[in-house]
Amino acid sequence: MEKITGNLQKESIQYMEFAKNVGKIVSIQGIIHRIREMTDFAFVILRTSRDVVQCIYSPKFSNYQLDEKVQEGCSVTVTGLVVQDQTREGRYELQIHNIAILSQPAEPLPLVINKKQIDNIALDLYLNMRSVVLRNPKERAVFKLQEGIARGFREYLLKQNFTEIRTPKIVFAGAEGGANIFKLDYFGKQVFLAQSPQFYKQMMIPIYERVFEIAPVFRAEHHDTSRHLNEYISMDLEMGFINSFYDIMEIETGALKYIFELLNHEYKNELELLNVQMPNIESIPTIKFMDAKDIIIHKFKKKITDFKDFDPEEEQLLGKWAKKEFDSDFLFVTHYPSEKRPFYAMDDQNNPAYTCSFDLLFRGIEITTGGQRIHDYHSQVAKMQARGMQVAEFESYLMLHKYGVPPHGGLGLGLERITMHLLGFKNVRYASLFPRDLHRVTP
Amino acid sequence: MEKITGNLQKESIQYMEFAKNVGKIVSIQGIIHRIREMTDFAFVILRTSRDVVQCIYSPKFSNYQLDEKVQEGCSVTVTGLVVQDQTREGRYELQIHNIAILSQPAEPLPLVINKKQIDNIALDLYLNMRSVVLRNPKERAVFKLQEGIARGFREYLLKQNFTEIRTPKIVFAGAEGGANIFKLDYFGKQVFLAQSPQFYKQMMIPIYERVFEIAPVFRAEHHDTSRHLNEYISMDLEMGFINSFYDIMEIETGALKYIFELLNHEYKNELELLNVQMPNIESIPTIKFMDAKDIIIHKFKKKITDFKDFDPEEEQLLGKWAKKEFDSDFLFVTHYPSEKRPFYAMDDQNNPAYTCSFDLLFRGIEITTGGQRIHDYHSQVAKMQARGMQVAEFESYLMLHKYGVPPHGGLGLGLERITMHLLGFKNVRYASLFPRDLHRVTP
Repeated sequence: MEKITGNLQKESIQYMEFAKNVGKIVSIQGIIHRIREMTDFAFVILRTSRDVVQCIYSPKFSNYQLDEKVQEGCSVTVTGLVVQDQTREGRYELQIHNIAILSQPAEPLPLVINKKQIDNIALDLYLNMRSVVLRNPKERAVFKLQEGIARGFREYLLKQNFTEIRTPKIVFAGAEGGANIFKLDYFGKQVFLAQSPQFYKQMMIPIYERVFEIAPVFRAEHHDTSRHLNEYISMDLEMGFINSFYDIMEIETGALKYIFELLNHEYKNELELLNVQMPNIESIPTIKFMDAKDIIIHKFKKKITDFKDFDPEEEQLLGKWAKKEFDSDFLFVTHYPSEKRPFYAMDDQNNPAYTCSFDLLFRGIEITTGGQRIHDYHSQVAKMQARGMQVAEFESYLMLHKYGVPPHGGLGLGLERITMHLLGFKNVRYASLFPRDLHRVTP
Repeated sequence: MEKITGNLQKESIQYMEFAKNVGKIVSIQGIIHRIREMTDFAFVILRTSRDVVQCIYSPKFSNYQLDEKVQEGCSVTVTGLVVQDQTREGRYELQIHNIAILSQPAEPLPLVINKKQIDNIALDLYLNMRSVVLRNPKERAVFKLQEGIARGFREYLLKQNFTEIRTPKIVFAGAEGGANIFKLDYFGKQVFLAQSPQFYKQMMIPIYERVFEIAPVFRAEHHDTSRHLNEYISMDLEMGFINSFYDIMEIETGALKYIFELLNHEYKNELELLNVQMPNIESIPTIKFMDAKDIIIHKFKKKITDFKDFDPEEEQLLGKWAKKEFDSDFLFVTHYPSEKRPFYAMDDQNNPAYTCSFDLLFRGIEITTGGQRIHDYHSQVAKMQARGMQVAEFESYLMLHKYGVPPHGGLGLGLERITMHLLGFKNVRYASLFPRDLHRVTP
């Protein structure tokens, strides 16, 4: 009987270990990314999980025939001598002694993935071929960076004593209300896909004080725009014992700073490949909703038709203004009109037409909506009644207020949106591994 | 204009800071968990995010009237003098100077949550009242521990160069096939909820080599048992360049060891509250499926009716056997019959009626299914055809094999199941924050 001890022994090493193995014979595993035949030798470029490794084939030192079986797309173990790269300082290459083929493709790749970047192809084809396109190192860097963004959010919040929770995605009522909700037949009963973990994260406040969740949410929006997805990853947090909603903005700013530092430290390779312009986030300026409208009117001479919300163009103008005035890529807009905010939003005591809430704009586009919630039971019921809601339907949610909850608030941050704007994509679909939109549920 | 710098300043401190503040006046925030009035003083027990803090009210040093406004369920800021607890060594308490009420409940709690444990109530009521029940410190410890399990899984894999991915939950085809899949109307098109990230994680192998995901999966199973949920959290991993499926078992064993160490270090309080018997995981024994059947027949004198799978009783017997023979809480069973494994499972070259696969039993219950996958395009197509599947429907999945993928495999680990068996629960519903079953979609 074999016993498993949990120590996986690999004979092959990673490229990062080459530096300390110069002059030694080692093995490395990867997929053949590119073969460049020269007059009397060949470059065999290996793609490994995070590197692209140059191996040299030459009859002088290679014991292996570089025949037609060795082709792009093959998974191989290459054994050879580690030497310094003569033309690129600080880089190492492998003089191939042997190649063992582990797996072979059935067909050559349908598009070129081993150049610096993928040729410009139509978005639809690009997404159909997503799993092929991502074999390009620059393309795959996008979702490695996205890992880092979510990881930074989580690591920062754990350090701030938040608890990570997992709430159901099959739900009996929508947190956002309205028609933008997917319906599901659940053993003969009609239920919904969660638009947000809102109710659940609030319910955890008297239990853990501070909670967060990183999970998919579903919106049946009929928007066919470059910034809407019907399924996306929401990074949600909720925190109790706040003095005001400014506390939530402090936590978000702290999280963003931590995220960008983490990317700078542990995702440098990806930032370089993608030529990312890291944002300035020393501090984030804030402006009240109505003052922002004022700036749009007076600085940008734009006629306002809607005083309840911003249109995309107005957000863009505010982004420009924040960059020009404060050299900031971010701008908090606070005190949104009550009418446009959900029933659980706390109204501003000084002016109840506005809420204790905020949006965060990143380079002129909203990536977060947040705010303080109502914690008093009677106030919450009164606001629901004023909106004509059926209070009885929210019985389990209202237990929260009935049995006592500290002043609290939170926010949601769209993972794809922040990825999109950090990387300067024109379309959010490029920032989702397998995007879901009005027309697309494949691959 | 206010600027947000990301440094949230709190005037109150946490209980863990009491030790270095003895003799000083501090503030702490929490919810009043219990008030015990004595003859000339009172205990005001405060519940904070992870502690229960003893505060002493006495007219001798308290400037605040302990009137009816101060009640259980109130959120408060308590200010007072930190002193050593005279009766419990290493513990500290607060002599209350002042109490500021931040929020008040509308009604007293409907059940007692401030005893050592919740009174025994029917599961249905218990789950209806989940958000109330969890205010009990022992109850909430369950999901704090669950945080630790998922965190350990993730941290270990990140250290092993895995990439965290996020795959869609709205899908065009089920990975597991069969009828146990939820159907969804998606803008007039019929689509499904993902039963598993199987296809997507495999598609990432030629890109990142090693990937994992921790996310909800959905199974429309009609089972009404104590171990099935219709929505649960699957901790999935997939890794390339394996020598055999034993590599996957090594990674899983390493992850489990890391998880239990993390719990021992950072979740000690919760382990004690829940009186957890930590499992022995020095090494995990392995046994082949048919040898396991043999043991059931010969050691336990049980008559076998199904030679293709285990029934729950058989798994229990194998768990007992592993404990007795090897003092192990875990047992890997390998080489399951091909017939019962999915179309992407790799058959054993030496005996194609069995697969290069495994289950992991924890205390006699399956918590993981895993194995090596077919990586050769022609072999995969042949196996699908032999099963009568429509190969054309899987075009985007089969791009993986067609364009080359290294030998690979992976596993899925149910978060609720491992939580359940670690804590000795009789029903998996106790291990899900808001469980979904045949009859329940609320709260």
